[in-house]
Amino acid sequence: MARPKLQDVAARAGVSVTTVSRVLNNRGYLSDDLRRRVKAAIDELGYRPDAIARSLIGRKSGLVGVVVPTVADPFFGELVSAIERSLAEHGYKTLLCDCQQNAEREAEYLDLLQANRVDGIITSTHNRDVAGYDQAELPIVAVDRRLAAHIPIIRSDNRAGGRLATEHLLARGSRAPLLITATDHAGNDRAASYREVMSERGLEARVRAYGYSTPVEDRRALVETWLSESGADGVFATDDLTAMMALEWAHKTGRRVPDDVRVVGYDGSAAVRQGVPGLTTVAQPIERLGARAAEVLVDRIAAPDAVMAPEPPLSIGLRVGWTS
Amino acid sequence: MARPKLQDVAARAGVSVTTVSRVLNNRGYLSDDLRRRVKAAIDELGYRPDAIARSLIGRKSGLVGVVVPTVADPFFGELVSAIERSLAEHGYKTLLCDCQQNAEREAEYLDLLQANRVDGIITSTHNRDVAGYDQAELPIVAVDRRLAAHIPIIRSDNRAGGRLATEHLLARGSRAPLLITATDHAGNDRAASYREVMSERGLEARVRAYGYSTPVEDRRALVETWLSESGADGVFATDDLTAMMALEWAHKTGRRVPDDVRVVGYDGSAAVRQGVPGLTTVAQPIERLGARAAEVLVDRIAAPDAVMAPEPPLSIGLRVGWTS
Repeated sequence: MARPKLQDVAARAGVSVTTVSRVLNNRGYLSDDLRRRVKAAIDELGYRPDAIARSLIGRKSGLVGVVVPTVADPFFGELVSAIERSLAEHGYKTLLCDCQQNAEREAEYLDLLQANRVDGIITSTHNRDVAGYDQAELPIVAVDRRLAAHIPIIRSDNRAGGRLATEHLLARGSRAPLLITATDHAGNDRAASYREVMSERGLEARVRAYGYSTPVEDRRALVETWLSESGADGVFATDDLTAMMALEWAHKTGRRVPDDVRVVGYDGSAAVRQGVPGLTTVAQPIERLGARAAEVLVDRIAAPDAVMAPEPPLSIGLRVGWTS
Repeated sequence: MARPKLQDVAARAGVSVTTVSRVLNNRGYLSDDLRRRVKAAIDELGYRPDAIARSLIGRKSGLVGVVVPTVADPFFGELVSAIERSLAEHGYKTLLCDCQQNAEREAEYLDLLQANRVDGIITSTHNRDVAGYDQAELPIVAVDRRLAAHIPIIRSDNRAGGRLATEHLLARGSRAPLLITATDHAGNDRAASYREVMSERGLEARVRAYGYSTPVEDRRALVETWLSESGADGVFATDDLTAMMALEWAHKTGRRVPDDVRVVGYDGSAAVRQGVPGLTTVAQPIERLGARAAEVLVDRIAAPDAVMAPEPPLSIGLRVGWTS
C-alpha cells in the first residue's frame, strides 16, 4: 500500500482533513473524543506527520522565495540544495528564482515574490543595485550580501579565508602571488586580508578584478593575460572557477603546478571537490550557510519584529591539494 | 514575427512583466492609465492570452514542481536553471524539489506536489522504483527517464552520443577503451552504442558500473582500481565527473593524457566546460532539454488529453579537447 496521506487519516477517523491538521498542530478547539479518534487512525495507518506533511497544514503559503544568480553555478547549486533541504525540514517549500545572472530579473522576482505572498525570501546575488529590498515588508535573509541595515547576513569568515590563502601561498614559497577576484570594492574581505598579509611581509600586493558581468570566455582571456604578464609564482583566486582557469593556463603554457606556480581557489563546492580533488582551496561551509540562512528566516517569519543579534561569520578551512 | 510574449507586451507598454500579469489577473492596485496602456499593447501586438496567460488568470496555482536528484550536481543545476527560465517565460513559477539523491524523498515530493495542486511536474531523477507517477493525475514530463507509457520523455540522442565517444577513442588510437557508467541496464543507450561499436571492430567490450547510490569517494576508489587493473588505454565515462576522476587518477599515477590514456566524458555542463575546457566530452544540449521539457509541459497543461507524438531525441555533439 502507498504511504498513508493526511486524507487517509481523515477518512479512517471519519473527520475532515482540517480536523486532522488541528490535532497534529494542537490548534483550535477539539474534543477529547476527536483527538482520540484521529490519533487512533494515525496509529492504525502508520501515518508519519513529517515536516513535509506539516507544511500542508499551516495557515501561511508555506512558500519561501530563494533568489540566486543561477543554480547552474555549482556553488549556488549546492547552496540552494542545502537551503531547500533545511526549509523542507521546517515545513517550507522552495520557490526557485534563478536570476540568470541578470539584475533586471532580480528586481522582477522581488516584485513577483511580494505579489505572491510568499512567507519570506532568502537572497544571495551579486547585483548591488537592486532597489526594493529595503522597502520589502517580508522577512528577508541575505547570504553573504549587505542589503539593508535590518536584514540579517549569513556569511562565512572571509577575513580569515583571505588570510589563510595568502599565508599558505607564501609558506609554499611564493613571493609574488597575484590576487584575482570579481570586484575590488571596499567590502571585499578576501582582498582586504590578502593586502594585509602582503603588507605585513613587506611584499607588493597585486590585485586584478574581472567584474561579475564579464562573460566566462572574456574572463578566461583576462586571467590568462594577467598570469602571463605578471610573472606571478602564485595565484589566489577568490573563486574556484578562476583557480581552474589558472590550472588550464599552466597546462597550456607548459608551467608546472606547483613548482612554477602555486594555485589556491575559494569556495570548495562538492562539485569542484569531486571533480578536481587536488585543488587547494578555502572551503566555505556551504551546507551550513544554507541551513543557517533557512533557520534564521524561519525564526524571522515566526517573530518578524524580534531584534536579532548579528550572526557571527561561520568558520572556514583550507583544504590543501597538489596545486600548492 | 514570433508569437508575441508577455515580455513583448510589457516592453510595448513600457511596464514590467509583473504589471502586465496583474492587469491580466485583475489583481492589485493599478491606475486606469496603466490598464489602458497594457490593453493597448495587447491589442497592437495581437497578444493572445493563451495557455500562458490563462495560467496567470485562472484558478490554477501557476506552480510547476521540478523534481531532480540534486541541484548541487552541475548538470542538474544547469538543467533546472533552463527549466526555470523557460517556465517563467510561460508564466509559471518553479517549485524546486531537490531529492538529495534519495528515492524516499522523491516519493514524498510526489505526494506533496499532488496535494498542493501544482499545475504540472517535470521530473529528472535516477530512482527507477518510485511508484505513483503512473497514477498521478497531473500533467508530467520526464527528462531522460521512462516513467509510464503516457508520460512524454525529453532526452538527447544517447545512441548517437555513445557511438561518437567510442568511435572517437578508437580514431585516437585507443585499442582497449573501458566504459565506466552508473548502471549497466538494458535502457542504457550509451553503453549499448559502446558495445555495438566495439563489436563492429572486433574488439572486446569492457563495462564497469559503479551504481547511482555509491558515495563519491567509494566511486573514486572503484574507478581508480578499475583503471589501474584493466590496463585501459582509453576511458569513455558516461558522465563528466567520472571522466575528471580518470584525469586525477592519471595525474596521481604519472600517466600521460592523452598519450597513455585518452579520456572522453559525457554531459558537457557549462560548469565543467568552464572549469575544465580541455576535457573531451559528449555535450548534451542541456539548455534545450530544459526549455523543451517546459514547453511540452505547458502544452500538456493546456490540453491534458491531447495525443502527442513522441518527442524526437535532441541532437548532441562531441567537443574535442586535449584529453583525447
